[in-house]
Amino acid sequence: MDVPVAEPVVRAVSDLVAAGDTGYPASPDEYVAAFSAFAADRWGWQVDATLARVVPDILAGLGAVIEATTPPGDTVIVPSPVYGPFFRNPRLIGRVVEPVALTAGGRLDVPALEEAFAAAVAGGRRASVLLSNPHNPTGVVHTRAELEALAAAAARHGVVVISDEAHAPLVHPGATFVPYVEVDPRGVSVLSAAKTWNLAGFKAAIVVAGPEARAIVDAFPVTLFNGVGHVSLVAQTAAFRDGGPWLDELLPALTRSRDLLVDLVAEHLPLARMQVPESTYLAWVDLSAYGAGDDPAALILERGRVALSRGTDFGPGGEGHARVNFATHPEILTEAVRRIAAALA
Amino acid sequence: MDVPVAEPVVRAVSDLVAAGDTGYPASPDEYVAAFSAFAADRWGWQVDATLARVVPDILAGLGAVIEATTPPGDTVIVPSPVYGPFFRNPRLIGRVVEPVALTAGGRLDVPALEEAFAAAVAGGRRASVLLSNPHNPTGVVHTRAELEALAAAAARHGVVVISDEAHAPLVHPGATFVPYVEVDPRGVSVLSAAKTWNLAGFKAAIVVAGPEARAIVDAFPVTLFNGVGHVSLVAQTAAFRDGGPWLDELLPALTRSRDLLVDLVAEHLPLARMQVPESTYLAWVDLSAYGAGDDPAALILERGRVALSRGTDFGPGGEGHARVNFATHPEILTEAVRRIAAALA
Repeated sequence: MDVPVAEPVVRAVSDLVAAGDTGYPASPDEYVAAFSAFAADRWGWQVDATLARVVPDILAGLGAVIEATTPPGDTVIVPSPVYGPFFRNPRLIGRVVEPVALTAGGRLDVPALEEAFAAAVAGGRRASVLLSNPHNPTGVVHTRAELEALAAAAARHGVVVISDEAHAPLVHPGATFVPYVEVDPRGVSVLSAAKTWNLAGFKAAIVVAGPEARAIVDAFPVTLFNGVGHVSLVAQTAAFRDGGPWLDELLPALTRSRDLLVDLVAEHLPLARMQVPESTYLAWVDLSAYGAGDDPAALILERGRVALSRGTDFGPGGEGHARVNFATHPEILTEAVRRIAAALA
Repeated sequence: MDVPVAEPVVRAVSDLVAAGDTGYPASPDEYVAAFSAFAADRWGWQVDATLARVVPDILAGLGAVIEATTPPGDTVIVPSPVYGPFFRNPRLIGRVVEPVALTAGGRLDVPALEEAFAAAVAGGRRASVLLSNPHNPTGVVHTRAELEALAAAAARHGVVVISDEAHAPLVHPGATFVPYVEVDPRGVSVLSAAKTWNLAGFKAAIVVAGPEARAIVDAFPVTLFNGVGHVSLVAQTAAFRDGGPWLDELLPALTRSRDLLVDLVAEHLPLARMQVPESTYLAWVDLSAYGAGDDPAALILERGRVALSRGTDFGPGGEGHARVNFATHPEILTEAVRRIAAALA
């Protein structure tokens, strides 16, 4: 996002460096406490600290949960299109990735997911699902009813749902984020301050198991926390603890930026189909009507000098699409859409 | 270490936070370049950037090399006593750890190591060695002749030597650090700015393969670099690039502190046997003559309120020992040794 870093984070990092406190963290406790207070305040979610583990980043957390829930050779089910590492990372640790298409409206197709669960666990094998909640790249915020249906289907087949909630605090008016473990005691939620406060460079994340999934986090190697850097922990702790006012200022600006993008696309890209994101600063745009092939982002970069994320990086269903980051100034966004239109003309 | 953070690091981190540059790193190139210039300047080591990979931290680097050189169930040989994670981490990824005692003088016992190599590779199995170079906890700086003998023995048995060179820049007058891959083209060296500039909280490390070990770093998963945080990379890059003057000021102070510790131990702990560290800010002290059992550090903490590292955390040979961190002010060190003596009296 094109935004300055939240002042409490700047101060925490500056104080730490000035004090020479650049060694090892004492414990994850302050981070867990700051996150828990934030979760209670924003979502009414009372996090049980004994079910929480701090890990180096979201992907490390997802990987550790996959390791604890499926043996190599078994299946990780992935609603698609979705954030590319959901495909790449499970394969790197020897899991089979099974994509299941979202509905035409970009929402979870629970009946299709349940079919995939049944197939994956046939013969006594195990499976897990990687959920993007809210969904990257569409910005869909799964409803409580959708998540409950998913949880029921997962329970019927003994499948574990692993929910990446990186964008959870970035929800636009009209939608409500539901922490996955609030509807599924067998599931696991993974969150971080990285996306919300623009702190991807300060890596840390928290894994919260549902009350019936304690064995999953208890199976984490004791060394996992050793991969967490102290400075990152302090920066993200400050964000969760004191970064609320900054976030409250950011959110309306992001919503205005989203609405501007909707208007700009309607005006300059009449053939595009764009799902209005209910969350995040990311928009998923179907540009296939412009006949620019599977990867319109390549043409747009070459002709228009605007860098979008390639739709094909998001798995099956990403063809002809591009992902736009709209967390920038109105002039830049306006200029970008004009250039995209010119490149596709 | 009880020292302020090097000013170029403070500045780099402050500038980055002020600029909002807290997202993802563009590439590892600047870090590799800064490290390479440092290695050339300090050790005359010309690093081939195509053999270097940036990884989240030293332990992640050692782990990735182990994964690339031995299958699960095979052996990792460890000169002992040594840094505790050399035992713990290979076991967590399913390797068998085989300790080989250092000589009575605390140096590498190459004939004993070669026997262990022969046993480990019997029947076509594979093995690697974790070398601490310089050696933690003894502070021994392995000589070129010792490393050459180790390399020859490793080559005879097809064993790969993996050298943790975390403390390489912290060598006292009279000893000379030799990068392991300079004597063994089949080996791998792993280094970081974390220990030298007191930046363990800014995690990053570099793995440098010898010219005949390219396949090892080529086998690293492409996602390994994704675990490196941008802020850490920037901090450590500043240390390697601009932290030389700070280091030059630190080193004589560390040597004075070491000499003070030697005097204090001779005066207050006449039954202790302490190897004079040729490097690092760590001293390995044999307190077994005081009859405080395998773990004198426990008694010293309880009675003297001085926290030392437990000898038993360093594997076989650590019984009756403790590791002292002497990178502190003379008054504190003096008070600490007096309290240790009183606790053991």
